[in-house]
Amino acid sequence: MRAAVMRNKKLVVDTLPDPEPAAGQVLVKTLACGICGSDLHALKHADLMVEIGKRSGGQGGMDPDRDIVMGHEFCVEIVDFGPDCQKTLKPGTRACSIPILLGQDGMKPVGYSNDVPGGYAEYMLLSEMMLLEVPNGLSTERAALTEPMAVGWHAVAKANLTDDDVPLVIGCGPVGLAVIAALRIRGAGPIVAADFSATRRKMAETMGADIVIDPAETSPYRAWQDAATPEGAVAVEGSLAFMGPTLKPAVIFECVGVRGIVQQILEGAPRAARIVIVGVCMEVDHFEPMFGINKELNLQFVIAYSPPEFAATLQHLAEGKISPDPIITGSVGVEGVAGAFEELASPDLHAKILVEPWR
Amino acid sequence: MRAAVMRNKKLVVDTLPDPEPAAGQVLVKTLACGICGSDLHALKHADLMVEIGKRSGGQGGMDPDRDIVMGHEFCVEIVDFGPDCQKTLKPGTRACSIPILLGQDGMKPVGYSNDVPGGYAEYMLLSEMMLLEVPNGLSTERAALTEPMAVGWHAVAKANLTDDDVPLVIGCGPVGLAVIAALRIRGAGPIVAADFSATRRKMAETMGADIVIDPAETSPYRAWQDAATPEGAVAVEGSLAFMGPTLKPAVIFECVGVRGIVQQILEGAPRAARIVIVGVCMEVDHFEPMFGINKELNLQFVIAYSPPEFAATLQHLAEGKISPDPIITGSVGVEGVAGAFEELASPDLHAKILVEPWR
Repeated sequence: MRAAVMRNKKLVVDTLPDPEPAAGQVLVKTLACGICGSDLHALKHADLMVEIGKRSGGQGGMDPDRDIVMGHEFCVEIVDFGPDCQKTLKPGTRACSIPILLGQDGMKPVGYSNDVPGGYAEYMLLSEMMLLEVPNGLSTERAALTEPMAVGWHAVAKANLTDDDVPLVIGCGPVGLAVIAALRIRGAGPIVAADFSATRRKMAETMGADIVIDPAETSPYRAWQDAATPEGAVAVEGSLAFMGPTLKPAVIFECVGVRGIVQQILEGAPRAARIVIVGVCMEVDHFEPMFGINKELNLQFVIAYSPPEFAATLQHLAEGKISPDPIITGSVGVEGVAGAFEELASPDLHAKILVEPWR
Repeated sequence: MRAAVMRNKKLVVDTLPDPEPAAGQVLVKTLACGICGSDLHALKHADLMVEIGKRSGGQGGMDPDRDIVMGHEFCVEIVDFGPDCQKTLKPGTRACSIPILLGQDGMKPVGYSNDVPGGYAEYMLLSEMMLLEVPNGLSTERAALTEPMAVGWHAVAKANLTDDDVPLVIGCGPVGLAVIAALRIRGAGPIVAADFSATRRKMAETMGADIVIDPAETSPYRAWQDAATPEGAVAVEGSLAFMGPTLKPAVIFECVGVRGIVQQILEGAPRAARIVIVGVCMEVDHFEPMFGINKELNLQFVIAYSPPEFAATLQHLAEGKISPDPIITGSVGVEGVAGAFEELASPDLHAKILVEPWR
């Protein structure tokens, strides 16, 4: 099969052997697979990613010196079954799955493994018990967004929203947009969102943000404070803000994932804010604990989603509760993956590019 | 009045004018006042403390170049009343108070202000409405521990304990001991506690810790895992621990407050642990977010206590629910404060030294 292969820190197109399904596994055609920011990071820093994964109890076990086919945000079509399958879904059925393959030797991540090819290839193996049929005639492109949208749904679930919460989303890349979509479905608001990119601010509006801020012009925390001040009350400046009118509770979603952003949020956050860390920073970062202490801040780190959260997100897409079309800014074949990685480095051009190996 | 004064980064004994109570204020004799670790820090790094306080929305406004009388953990005796007082409590009554003085120009911290002397002096001013009579014939020495013990009670309240939680207390100085006492009152357990000092480990046992660890010999996280493994189950090593028997939920209290300890806890903590930051680190610290992300950790920063939590703690002491006597390792007059600060630098000698200005 043709695949975009990560080899020696480059993406090259090559022909690999078609994978063969073992017991409980299904051979599928990759119809569409989104490119994730983590894949961009892996191409540049696979060694660091493997090392920090091993040290911190995350997924690991891939050897960056051997071939890896990435891609973990996919919609597929069932082709054939391995032994011991139920075959409830017929060949030709479109499906999604969390990117985990169950096998004799345990669970392996689809897309970050030397043994299990991801969605930047014509074929993949998936576990039959993980397959979810694409419902309601949902388009393949939208179905492929289930995985990144599930990340937002999970992050919002971990925030334990109350009716009064006023959310602030820092960063409107795919992760921030998924958080905004989830907040909208849950009826939270007003939703304040901030990004330096005009393109992404426009997308944030499309996904349901109520107040969208360019941090180069306006402080997101000041905008949040205006949105969270009960009607008729007057906001109080500075460190004595907690003595002023009671602001509504703050839930801040960190969706940037670069060094220094956590400290920025600790500095800007109002008293007693809950901060959900959805962005992925793989480096050593710094912070000043006194900001957390004096404001009694809470930090909740999150990752991924549960299988039920993944299934709920596919259903939300199928029911039209999320309108993700503006996020999909391009599509390429396997030969276009390397170029797409380069274009994605510029936030004003793209959000999500889909790889379509059969186009 | 005689006082131990912080002047030019030194503690000197001097005679200051007796304070005069304004409206709603009470003149009190300081019977006993504990020396807090924050006071040790302030003597060395008052400039830094003021600067970080201003930037992070904390208490501030003191000028380290002018005299400051520290001391905010006190038991006092009522001497006289300013104008507009209710005089419900009579002169001679022993009382405690949160260290905040209300005045015409707002709230001022008692013990970290150029204008409001703290408990390292013969007299203080307190707000009548904040006074709590020492109940049940509780000794003055024990009553003076209300403030530091309230810090532990508040930290445990912010942890939102469930019945299943197994707590781990990192550091058994006065803050860690207060946390252990609060956990014991709430019936949490088994309580695992760790400190390098044999003296403090002994104190941790006295306060109610069930399993006390010397981190030089045993990993506190390994000891926690043993304590949190349900009976009959076998613990699983390493990063796949979450695939093994379900461990009970972890609540970890950081009671050290030095650089690097948060990262150590992020590395050692089990999946989904809640980490309560009670220790006060005033410097820039570092951390690796991936440990938080891959284990979905939660960090709750806390500070101080509410007035009801302070009152509840005084009641706990009066009812004998906390046995703090072994923590009190010495007492000095105002002339002994400078020496006591030096001795407190060594954790194997002392926990809490009381200043008794009238002895």
